[in-house]
Amino acid sequence: MGISANHRFDKTGEELLPAPGKPGARPPADQSVNQLDRFVAGKLLDFIGHPPILIQLWDGSTIGSVPGEPVATMQFQDRGSLYRILRNPELNWGDCFAEGRIEVKGNLVDFLQTVYLGLSSRKSIPLPGQLPNWHLHLNSKLANGSAASDIYHHYDIGNNFYRRWLDQTAMQYTCAYYPDPGMSLEQAQLAKMDYVCRKLQLSSGQEVVEAGCGWGGFALHMAEHYGVRVKAYNISREQIRYAKVQAQQRGLGERVEFILDDFRNIDGHYDVFVSIGMLEHVGSQNYPLLGGIIGRVLKPGGRGLIHSIGRNRAKPVNAWIERRIFPGAYPPSLREIMDIFEPNHLSVLDVENLRLHYALTLQAWLNRFEQSAGIIQEEMDELFVRTWRLYLSGSLAAFRTGDLQLFQVLFTPAHNNDLPWSRAHQLPG
Amino acid sequence: MGISANHRFDKTGEELLPAPGKPGARPPADQSVNQLDRFVAGKLLDFIGHPPILIQLWDGSTIGSVPGEPVATMQFQDRGSLYRILRNPELNWGDCFAEGRIEVKGNLVDFLQTVYLGLSSRKSIPLPGQLPNWHLHLNSKLANGSAASDIYHHYDIGNNFYRRWLDQTAMQYTCAYYPDPGMSLEQAQLAKMDYVCRKLQLSSGQEVVEAGCGWGGFALHMAEHYGVRVKAYNISREQIRYAKVQAQQRGLGERVEFILDDFRNIDGHYDVFVSIGMLEHVGSQNYPLLGGIIGRVLKPGGRGLIHSIGRNRAKPVNAWIERRIFPGAYPPSLREIMDIFEPNHLSVLDVENLRLHYALTLQAWLNRFEQSAGIIQEEMDELFVRTWRLYLSGSLAAFRTGDLQLFQVLFTPAHNNDLPWSRAHQLPG
Repeated sequence: MGISANHRFDKTGEELLPAPGKPGARPPADQSVNQLDRFVAGKLLDFIGHPPILIQLWDGSTIGSVPGEPVATMQFQDRGSLYRILRNPELNWGDCFAEGRIEVKGNLVDFLQTVYLGLSSRKSIPLPGQLPNWHLHLNSKLANGSAASDIYHHYDIGNNFYRRWLDQTAMQYTCAYYPDPGMSLEQAQLAKMDYVCRKLQLSSGQEVVEAGCGWGGFALHMAEHYGVRVKAYNISREQIRYAKVQAQQRGLGERVEFILDDFRNIDGHYDVFVSIGMLEHVGSQNYPLLGGIIGRVLKPGGRGLIHSIGRNRAKPVNAWIERRIFPGAYPPSLREIMDIFEPNHLSVLDVENLRLHYALTLQAWLNRFEQSAGIIQEEMDELFVRTWRLYLSGSLAAFRTGDLQLFQVLFTPAHNNDLPWSRAHQLPG
Repeated sequence: MGISANHRFDKTGEELLPAPGKPGARPPADQSVNQLDRFVAGKLLDFIGHPPILIQLWDGSTIGSVPGEPVATMQFQDRGSLYRILRNPELNWGDCFAEGRIEVKGNLVDFLQTVYLGLSSRKSIPLPGQLPNWHLHLNSKLANGSAASDIYHHYDIGNNFYRRWLDQTAMQYTCAYYPDPGMSLEQAQLAKMDYVCRKLQLSSGQEVVEAGCGWGGFALHMAEHYGVRVKAYNISREQIRYAKVQAQQRGLGERVEFILDDFRNIDGHYDVFVSIGMLEHVGSQNYPLLGGIIGRVLKPGGRGLIHSIGRNRAKPVNAWIERRIFPGAYPPSLREIMDIFEPNHLSVLDVENLRLHYALTLQAWLNRFEQSAGIIQEEMDELFVRTWRLYLSGSLAAFRTGDLQLFQVLFTPAHNNDLPWSRAHQLPG
C-alpha cells in the first residue's frame, strides 16, 4: 500500500489498453443466451477450479452446480463482459466489475477468497482458444499515459478520501498489528508503530531515517514517544506538506525533518533505518541499490527494519491491480528481498510474517470505506467506488488465502555484536 | 554440527590429498631464514589484511609490526609449513596447525577472529604466484576414501568423547539458547529445547516427526514435557541405539519411536515437523526434496521448524572443515533455504538469527574440551586434540565475527490460518 508513498513513474512508451468504461453505460440486457455462451461460462468454472459459486448469465439462467448454498453468484450483465474476460481475464474481470458489467451476489470478499483458493488448487486448464492465462502478467513495466494518470488521479484524491477509512490517529496506509484481534484499527496501528519501535530498540537521542513516510504519522510517533530525531523521506508533495503541518502542530518540528525526496538521495549516518510499506514500490531491480544506501548510512551498531507486502514465492502482480491501482508495484518473495542484504554486508536478525494482521487491517478499512461509500460516490463516481471496493476486497481475500504475505525484516550490519539476547524487549513492557 | 546426525557419503571417485601428518614428526628446526622466506611471510600478512598479529619464523625472528600488543603471534616451526600454506591456504593452514607445525602464541580464538576480520575487510591481494585464494573452495563434492574414513573415525569416537564436553542432560550437539548469557550450558540447552517447543506451540497429543535427532535428547524432552508422540529419524546407528536406551530408562518408549533411517523415508502425517542441526548436512541440491517431504507429511494446520547454521550470503565451506571435519556439510544462506519452502506451498512465519548464542555455546564446549584435553590426548592422540581445538575455536571465531549465522525458521502450509496473533507464547510462561 502507500500508493502515494514512494513510487516513481517511468515514462517509457507502452501501448495502452482502453480505460474502463463508466458503470451505467451498459448495453441493452435483452440479449438471449446461446449454447456457446453456456459452454464458455462452463469452461470458466473449469478454469477457476470449480469453487462453490454459480455463474448467472444475462437472461437469468445459471451455470454450475454446488452442493448446498453457493458462496456467491457471479452475474454477467451482458455477453460482452463474458467474452471480454477471456482475453486477459485478470485485468478485464476487474474492469468489468468496476464498470458494473459483472456483479457479485453474496459477499464479495468471500467470493474472491473462494475463487483464489479454487485457482490455487486447480490443475492447469486452458481457457477456450489460445487465450492468456488468468495469472498472465500483462505487463511488468511501469505504466504510463492514462494508467499513470489513473494513479495521479488517485493520488490527487487527497487526504480527505483516505481520512474516511484509515485510522484517525496516524493515517497509516500500511498493515496494522493486532496482538489482540479484537482491537480497533486505531489501537492496532498504534500497536504496530510501538512494535516496530521495540523491535528496533529505539532509545532517546538516536538518529533515525525513514524511507517512505506517508503522512508522517510514524515519524512523529517515534519522535514523540521514543525521543529520537527523525529524517523522513517521501516523494509525495501533498503528504509531506500534511506531515510538516502535523509536526508543527504537535511541537515536533525540531525533532522531525520531513524531506521531499527519493530514498536514493538519503545521506548522513543513522542509528536506525526504517521503511514501512515502501519496498512494494521500489521495484526488485532496485533492491541492491536500496541495500547499498542502507549499508552506507547505517552506523556499524545500527539496526534497520523493512515492512513490506510479500509473497511465498515470486509471482507476477495481479494485472488489474498493477494497471488500475499501483503501476510498478511488486510484492517480493523473501528470496528476492535478500537482494537488499546479501551484497551489502547486512545480516538478517528477525523475520515476522504478519499476513493475517493485514487481513484484519483491510477488513477494518473496507468496513469504513463501505460506511462512506455513498458520500464517496457523490464526490467521485460509481466507477471509483467499485474500483476501490474491488481493490480492498481483493487484497483482503489475498491475505486471507495466503496469496499475499506481510514481512517485517529486522537487520543489522554483519559485524554488529551488540544484539539482544532474546525477544523479550519486543513485547509491550 | 550434528556430525553423526544425518549425512550421507557419496562414493564418487575423487583424488585425495595426503592426510595430515602426526604432530611431533617435525623436521629439524635448525633451518635458517632467508630473504625469500621473509618476503613470503610479509605477503601472507598483506594477504590476510594486516590484522594486529605477528608472524614468527623458525629462527625466532618476527615479521610484521603492530601498534601496541599483538593479539597473537603465529609461529611457523619450519619452512615447509610456510610454503605449504601458499598452496591451498585454508586446508593446509588447518593441517599444519593440527600437526603442530604452526603454533599460535596467544588466544587461539582471538587470533582466528582477528584473521577472519582481516580477511573480510581486506582488498583482494593475491598471494605470490598464481596461487589459490585463501577462500578457494577446494572441492565441493562429498569426500570419500580417507576423508570419509576421517569422519567415520570421528563418528566412531563414540559417545564418551562427546559426553566430555556437550551438556550433561540432553547431549545437544547444536546451538543452545541463552536468553541470559550467564546461563550454564545445561540451562541454555534446556532453554533452547523449550524455546523451540514454544515456537512450535506443542500441545499434548500432537504427533511430531523429528528429522536428524542426534542422541535423542530433544525428542525425549518433547515427549516428556509436552505430552506429544514423536517419531525421530537418524541414520547414525550408534546414536539411535543410545537414544533407545534413554527412552526405556525414562519410561518414554511408548511415546517416542527412534527410527534408524534417512529423512527421505519419513512417511505418515504429523502436526509438527522439526529438525535441529540436520540441514547443514542435507546438501542444498536436496532442499526441494526435503521441502517436498515436509509438504507431504505436514497436516494442513501443522507447523515446522528448521534450525540450521547459515550464512548471510552463499559462500563455499571452509576447505579444512569440509575435508577434515564434515564432508558434504554446507551452511546455507536464507536465499538458499527458500528452496525448501517455495516449491512446496509452505509459508515462512518467523526467522530468528541466534548467531551469538552459538558463539556462547561453542565457548562452553571449548572450555570443557580444554578441561579434558589431557585425557582425550591420552585416549586419542595429539593430532586429534589439535584438530578438534582448531575446529571448535574456528567455529567460535566464525560466529563471533558474523562469518556464520544460526537460523531458526518457523513455517506452515500456505493456507493455514490458525496462526498465533503475537509472539507472546514464545516467551517462557
